[in-house]
Amino acid sequence: MPIQKYRAFEPIDLPDRQWPGRTITKAPIWCSVDLRDGNQALIEPMDSRRKHKMFDALVKMGFKEIEVGFPAASDTDFNFVREIIEQGKVPADVSIQVLTQARPELIERTFEAIRGAPRAIVHLYNSTSTLQRRVVFGMDRDGITEIAVKGAELCKKLRDAMPETEVMFEYSPESFTGTELDFARDVCAAVMDVWEPTPERKVILNLPATVEMASPNIYADQIEWMHRNLPRRDSVILSLHPHNDRGTGVAAAELGILAGADRIEGTLFGNGERTGNVDVINIALNMFTQGIDPQLEIGDINELRDVAIECNQLPIHPRHPYVGDLVFTAFSGSHQDAIKKGMAAREKANSDIWEVPYLPIDPQDLGRSYEAIVRVNSQSGKGGISYLIQRDFNLDLPKALQASFSKVIQKYTDETGKEVSSELIWDFFEKKYLTRAEPFEFVTYRTTPDPHASERRLLTAEIKDKGKLREIHGKGNGPIAAFVNALRSECNVDMRLKNYTEHAVGTGADAAAVAYVEVEGPDGSTIWGVGIHPNIVQASLKALISAANQASDI
Amino acid sequence: MPIQKYRAFEPIDLPDRQWPGRTITKAPIWCSVDLRDGNQALIEPMDSRRKHKMFDALVKMGFKEIEVGFPAASDTDFNFVREIIEQGKVPADVSIQVLTQARPELIERTFEAIRGAPRAIVHLYNSTSTLQRRVVFGMDRDGITEIAVKGAELCKKLRDAMPETEVMFEYSPESFTGTELDFARDVCAAVMDVWEPTPERKVILNLPATVEMASPNIYADQIEWMHRNLPRRDSVILSLHPHNDRGTGVAAAELGILAGADRIEGTLFGNGERTGNVDVINIALNMFTQGIDPQLEIGDINELRDVAIECNQLPIHPRHPYVGDLVFTAFSGSHQDAIKKGMAAREKANSDIWEVPYLPIDPQDLGRSYEAIVRVNSQSGKGGISYLIQRDFNLDLPKALQASFSKVIQKYTDETGKEVSSELIWDFFEKKYLTRAEPFEFVTYRTTPDPHASERRLLTAEIKDKGKLREIHGKGNGPIAAFVNALRSECNVDMRLKNYTEHAVGTGADAAAVAYVEVEGPDGSTIWGVGIHPNIVQASLKALISAANQASDI
Repeated sequence: MPIQKYRAFEPIDLPDRQWPGRTITKAPIWCSVDLRDGNQALIEPMDSRRKHKMFDALVKMGFKEIEVGFPAASDTDFNFVREIIEQGKVPADVSIQVLTQARPELIERTFEAIRGAPRAIVHLYNSTSTLQRRVVFGMDRDGITEIAVKGAELCKKLRDAMPETEVMFEYSPESFTGTELDFARDVCAAVMDVWEPTPERKVILNLPATVEMASPNIYADQIEWMHRNLPRRDSVILSLHPHNDRGTGVAAAELGILAGADRIEGTLFGNGERTGNVDVINIALNMFTQGIDPQLEIGDINELRDVAIECNQLPIHPRHPYVGDLVFTAFSGSHQDAIKKGMAAREKANSDIWEVPYLPIDPQDLGRSYEAIVRVNSQSGKGGISYLIQRDFNLDLPKALQASFSKVIQKYTDETGKEVSSELIWDFFEKKYLTRAEPFEFVTYRTTPDPHASERRLLTAEIKDKGKLREIHGKGNGPIAAFVNALRSECNVDMRLKNYTEHAVGTGADAAAVAYVEVEGPDGSTIWGVGIHPNIVQASLKALISAANQASDI
Repeated sequence: MPIQKYRAFEPIDLPDRQWPGRTITKAPIWCSVDLRDGNQALIEPMDSRRKHKMFDALVKMGFKEIEVGFPAASDTDFNFVREIIEQGKVPADVSIQVLTQARPELIERTFEAIRGAPRAIVHLYNSTSTLQRRVVFGMDRDGITEIAVKGAELCKKLRDAMPETEVMFEYSPESFTGTELDFARDVCAAVMDVWEPTPERKVILNLPATVEMASPNIYADQIEWMHRNLPRRDSVILSLHPHNDRGTGVAAAELGILAGADRIEGTLFGNGERTGNVDVINIALNMFTQGIDPQLEIGDINELRDVAIECNQLPIHPRHPYVGDLVFTAFSGSHQDAIKKGMAAREKANSDIWEVPYLPIDPQDLGRSYEAIVRVNSQSGKGGISYLIQRDFNLDLPKALQASFSKVIQKYTDETGKEVSSELIWDFFEKKYLTRAEPFEFVTYRTTPDPHASERRLLTAEIKDKGKLREIHGKGNGPIAAFVNALRSECNVDMRLKNYTEHAVGTGADAAAVAYVEVEGPDGSTIWGVGIHPNIVQASLKALISAANQASDI
């Protein structure tokens, strides 16, 4: 790899940095840039219908600041801004934000676009980085500062001429991450000298990682440096606009908040130029899992996913944090087992606190079900299989039966390499334990006390033996023992009862009993039989028939 | 949102933390877990063919440690490990790594699996977190430590019985991020007391973020605490195994390296349980962009992408860092303009250093082309359009012509909402400037000196006028001026030449000239004409015909 083409980012000299010792305690001000930075990076930008759909979803989520376009750059953007204003689509507590480069004709058209809006944020930017000064603009610091100041002056003039709209100002030294910190501060200071913000009428200073150029701790150092060195800090809302070129946009935003930022610009699920803007839902839900109110409503993440997919016409990856199809799924057997036990412990403790291994968040809090939590493939073990049988069919299999049955499924998954659904697992289970009628099938039974020994019962059972109806008889200290004896003596079934458990399935009139019997077969091996019936005795006898049928294979 | 269900992660008390002031200077030891942690999280785990394909790709990339499976958990895994050993697929400098829980029957089968391998890492784990101790195992610290120690003892015994294989040991306190730090240290120390590593024969201690539970700075604090408090530190390779539940896995790995880690376990493009393991290619390329040798060969990222998609049967998102289809694409006009200027400046300076705005890495270093860098939609401006025309058709349009022509494209993209390809742009360009033959079409010309004024030329041109062949005549101080005069006087074309430029297209025998003329039309507006021909004069005359045709529309 040609490493000689690249140079390390210069670290920030900030030995007394404070951010690593801080914790996030409240949500920042959120600003969605889906309709601008997100939109401009789409293969096919949103048409008016999709823009309205996205805007409505953002408002419903609770965004109070929404960048709705770059109206001077395209007619589609301009017209959309006019539409939402003229159709009264902007709630009273929401500020629409419009982006403009610091060029007079663009600024003028931008102010035209927001005419009549009750509240708006005019977001002025020009590029300040060392590289862009050299190769794009051919200007020194003074030239770049003059562009910003001239732009700020025109903004101020146009705002003063538009008293019916409450205009807030935002300034971005674009490509901030490639700008010398002292120059970034100076250009922000120069813009503030024009705008003269106060603690009552603040200005937003937005420090974009237009390109993510270094690890997130360095971005945090940059932000803390600005936070500590900006003049008029009490009149500034310090805003971040991270991109994700190095895959660390979310981390950069979080460390940037620790470093002093008040506000985050980003998009739903991280759409945006190249690798995307920072994913605001990801950051918000990270806060949520720490017990911090994210100040955004994300109770139905699937609905938001559908909006994003439709509006952006881009997919969402199955492993995307919080929203991907697979992010609440455990395929590994040990994970499945731990989840099962964690869910059970939580139920038992009747605790409201969410503490389940391998699930950092309760899927139901995002409107997702437990359906996908456990999926079974060749890497899974008995835990997942028994979890699915319990969840979907209410059978709480004894541990040794789990181990025994899981071999059947493991054989299938090893051979096919395929995932196995809950339904298919049940299919295997039914065939092995519940529906087999060869050689024996249970029909009915009656018991009477043994006239010779009061503690014993006599049992007469009607069964089919290779399809032929017959009666068999046995004695025991209960119907189960009596039936085992009947099968041994009259049907030549070589099995010995080792263990027996049962539990109810369902409640009320539909309730049934499920009986599990563990018997020793002719070769000394362990065989399980299962029976289900509303009558608990009949369930047990069916379980013995189930075991007897398997014993006959040996 | 029900925030009362969640509690904040307890911060680490480490006021003298050193990692925020450090920088990464060299690549860690890499270990791929694609064939184990990645594989177990697939809807349909890899079959033998896909496993071999992945293994071969990992070896080719330069991984020296590859976790090849959990052989005691499934026959597929066991058989694959046997295959690569018996078929001699493992290069001499590569260690295969096998995972096992700390249970005797699993450990024994694991050692069976590696028999005959020249080098292997046996990776022992048990879960240590507070939550799992309580809800999964019902054990205290001593009980969990005993599991680890017993497992370590059996490993040691089996290793000593297998002298033909160079076995290295790795231990993971699984669910480390949910484990009290002092207990994590104690259980690691207890395992080391059994294994007795030395600086010459180190042990790997792997600290997984089995679930990512806090922001990456806290993970870094945890790692630095362990780094500073582990006994026998000089005999330990400190390894990280981050997952990505909070979307900050890459950041956690990077800050963890700053905090003292020597080794990273992860997967290609971040496949793995739930949100995935950390993406090793992302971390490696982050280092690469800082001029650090990543010690992995990623010169053909598309090939690696294809392997991952085929083996995992999962997609890669178009915005995935470094590899996604859109990550080197700029749709925004100002970005396109800056990229174009940056590329030109780099060429002019003949610099090897990669410094191009909005492109943190040269796509060619990853085997990707410049094809996708600039794509044009309704959010783009003249920069992108002219970039594509220059790149694909070698025409370097004058700036004012760029602005004029871009309106044609903007109208199309605004109306359709669609992206416009380079070919379609060229189609519009050809139709407007090059192929139109109504009302005028150029046929041929000849010039002679004016016998009355030596510095003037007489020009006779043959043209078609509404399809009819005719000759026209004009005078001027060159053929261009003469032809303008001929068109004005004999064809009634009202236009005045304002500007003229030309440049060569192509080289050698195929070279042609392209001429651009800027004329003032009948209503005072500016009209551009373009002509291409191997003969420079004829190119100019064709450009004038191109302008005349457009003037006739006014």
